[in-house]
Amino acid sequence: MTDSTDHRAFSDERRELIEVDDELMKDIEEIVRTRSDFLLLNILQDLTPPDIAHIMNRLEAEEAEYVFGLLKADVASGVLLELDESHREHLLPRLPQEKLAELVDAMDSDDAADIIGALSRDQAARILGTMDVEDSSHVEELLRYDESTAGGIMAKEVATVHPDDTVKKAIRIVRRMAKDHKNIYNIYVTTDDGLLVGTVPIQSLLLYAPNKRIRKIMKDDVVSVTPDVDQEEVAQIFKKYDIISLPVTDTAGKLLGRITVDDIVDVLEEEHVEDVARMVGSDADEIERRSPTQVALLRLPWVLTTLFIELGAGLVISRFDETLSRVILLASFMPIISAISGNTGLQSAAIVVRGLATGHVDLARWWKPVIRQVQTTLIIGAACGLVIGLIGAYWDGNAVFGAVVGTSMFISINISGLVGTATPMISKRLGFDPALTAGPFETAFQDVVGISIFLSIATLLIQWL
Amino acid sequence: MTDSTDHRAFSDERRELIEVDDELMKDIEEIVRTRSDFLLLNILQDLTPPDIAHIMNRLEAEEAEYVFGLLKADVASGVLLELDESHREHLLPRLPQEKLAELVDAMDSDDAADIIGALSRDQAARILGTMDVEDSSHVEELLRYDESTAGGIMAKEVATVHPDDTVKKAIRIVRRMAKDHKNIYNIYVTTDDGLLVGTVPIQSLLLYAPNKRIRKIMKDDVVSVTPDVDQEEVAQIFKKYDIISLPVTDTAGKLLGRITVDDIVDVLEEEHVEDVARMVGSDADEIERRSPTQVALLRLPWVLTTLFIELGAGLVISRFDETLSRVILLASFMPIISAISGNTGLQSAAIVVRGLATGHVDLARWWKPVIRQVQTTLIIGAACGLVIGLIGAYWDGNAVFGAVVGTSMFISINISGLVGTATPMISKRLGFDPALTAGPFETAFQDVVGISIFLSIATLLIQWL
Repeated sequence: MTDSTDHRAFSDERRELIEVDDELMKDIEEIVRTRSDFLLLNILQDLTPPDIAHIMNRLEAEEAEYVFGLLKADVASGVLLELDESHREHLLPRLPQEKLAELVDAMDSDDAADIIGALSRDQAARILGTMDVEDSSHVEELLRYDESTAGGIMAKEVATVHPDDTVKKAIRIVRRMAKDHKNIYNIYVTTDDGLLVGTVPIQSLLLYAPNKRIRKIMKDDVVSVTPDVDQEEVAQIFKKYDIISLPVTDTAGKLLGRITVDDIVDVLEEEHVEDVARMVGSDADEIERRSPTQVALLRLPWVLTTLFIELGAGLVISRFDETLSRVILLASFMPIISAISGNTGLQSAAIVVRGLATGHVDLARWWKPVIRQVQTTLIIGAACGLVIGLIGAYWDGNAVFGAVVGTSMFISINISGLVGTATPMISKRLGFDPALTAGPFETAFQDVVGISIFLSIATLLIQWL
Repeated sequence: MTDSTDHRAFSDERRELIEVDDELMKDIEEIVRTRSDFLLLNILQDLTPPDIAHIMNRLEAEEAEYVFGLLKADVASGVLLELDESHREHLLPRLPQEKLAELVDAMDSDDAADIIGALSRDQAARILGTMDVEDSSHVEELLRYDESTAGGIMAKEVATVHPDDTVKKAIRIVRRMAKDHKNIYNIYVTTDDGLLVGTVPIQSLLLYAPNKRIRKIMKDDVVSVTPDVDQEEVAQIFKKYDIISLPVTDTAGKLLGRITVDDIVDVLEEEHVEDVARMVGSDADEIERRSPTQVALLRLPWVLTTLFIELGAGLVISRFDETLSRVILLASFMPIISAISGNTGLQSAAIVVRGLATGHVDLARWWKPVIRQVQTTLIIGAACGLVIGLIGAYWDGNAVFGAVVGTSMFISINISGLVGTATPMISKRLGFDPALTAGPFETAFQDVVGISIFLSIATLLIQWL
């Protein structure tokens, strides 16, 4: 698309992209350590910005800073966007203002807003001051939206035409925009008031005569979102309609910007990391942070909360110390019962959390997943109760002991399934993130419940044990 | 793009898409129950295929079958692709052969292969027999690739030009293809032998003169994959390079097909569901299966395996019954120690599994994540050991008891972190899915380790307890 590839384009050989493997990585580390500018530049010129970012992410912060200093502006701005957060946090305050301004200038408004949003208040104000008025007002608008909403991921750069314009005019607009922007997939059709009334996929411009009116070829059933829609919901819209870009409008239907699918790919990855982090009791930031102390501080609140919930299980056990000291074998079955019921609760919770995210589970029909999970846990509870009951009876040589163990297992698995299904829905209704209830707190809570049931039943039947 | 919207396109009003909310859903259920064809058709004609599929997914299988029977072929083929697996499994064997052939004929080869791959062997052979020779050989080729590889998600429909062709010729090719295919984003440049030597984004065709040669405007540094590359790795390539389509070639560089970003969005969702399912001890199929019995049977192998690992913890406890009966308060601290160390192990494992998937963790430098996790768990272990040690000392009124509890917590958290970090890497090296080691088995194993350490230390120091 640009002319920069022309000088090599006369061969029929496809240019081989260099793959960044361990061997190359080792060479680069050596070159970086000896600060051999010439050798390094030679390697870097055959790499794409994402590959250079990938290499820098694997280097120490100071080494990455050195590599970044060697890059030309057009490459550097692409690299900056793909860097790990920890490296970016190291780099940004150290860049000279003019260089940073140049890099931000080459970016689309959504990317520029991400970078400027990561700066200190002073630095951000200075960079915004160097930008032209339209660009800086775009970035300032984008910075007002919550990062994890449609407004936070949209860009302001849109190609627009009027319904009365011709295909020829639309092509002229695309040509003008294509100089600075690579990802133009749709042209948006707006009225004089800026209301979005249709879209024209760029390939349509190749199919019709130049003098054809846009209103005759536009798609008028446009899917759009308002800026406040959560990014996970936006991703589900992309998935459902198989689209590659989505317009953002205000509630009156005025076009504000557009979201492209490459940002959605990042959103899906982000939501995945966040869900997994929550389930193990940590924070999505962990994957970006390099320092073990930071990671420990992120995890500690979760770990300590879990610890205090588990103290509840300890208190329950201490209340039953008489039962335990008379039948010490009961202690051997405690971890089994609490682990299995905790796990069953977690399974149910994870399914409901996922269902709530994708719209498969519907709060207005809350009984549907509840009934389904109860039916499931009845079967799992019966199977596990039977297995552990037989093992218990054999081990203790006493059928009553087996019955106590098996019944407790059956009951606590079923309660866990029920609690695991209900809590994410209740959390969502109360406005909390349902994923919070499908993690270590859930498991810890089920420990308390499982052990209480087990030791209560054992105490009731103590005379036969 | 098609002419079908023209009849309404003379208004400046944007056509409002109907949103499928609870109220509409209730109305539709009522209409479906009374089999009011006319009313239902009236609603369906204002809905997109993904919306109709969404509605059908919320109905019972027989009701969905009735709705599907009312759809026109062009809508029905879009609906079929978005249906839940359970509904699709119900529908496919019940469709008349001619209708199914018509639906498959309207699909791109990758979608057609998905549907035909889900049919019985007989039904598949019959449908393939009705297709034209080129289409059926495409589908047969695609069916040979593993579902979760680049070959399994690619489509055979590609627009190709020769490097010596002109822009004008390329536009003609796009026009021809655009009749049947909506998602053409790139034109692939191939030699007479079919070797891929470049790509031309479709918007470039708008930027250059009609008689310009393709070799002068093509991008010749093409990222591509071979068909055997895992779909998760393919998704990472899309994410890294921010691309919307990716060519697939054989090892010699011959163009075989292309993957588009809408399929990658599905892959990311699928991998997410699979990871979460593994972490709670279940299978990604669970989210698609409706019958509680099927779900129970999917989960049971995981639950029973966990149960048998936990029996190990029970055996450990029974070997220490003398210690336990002398100091029954030890039993109260068992669940705390096992839960916290299990959780720490899971956290470390989840981080390493994620890192392995994204390439952040590199097996050739296995010591890097190990050292980082050890530093992290030293801090977490110290904090938790101190807290629980103080609680233990206060509760028992004995400093030695506190020391036993705190030290055990510290040691078992650190071992858990180490084991949690190492096992995913070892699994990967041995060719297993590392996600398998970041689930209930991990937690159960840590229970055994944590309790062993705790009761061993308590037994060693029993005379002071």
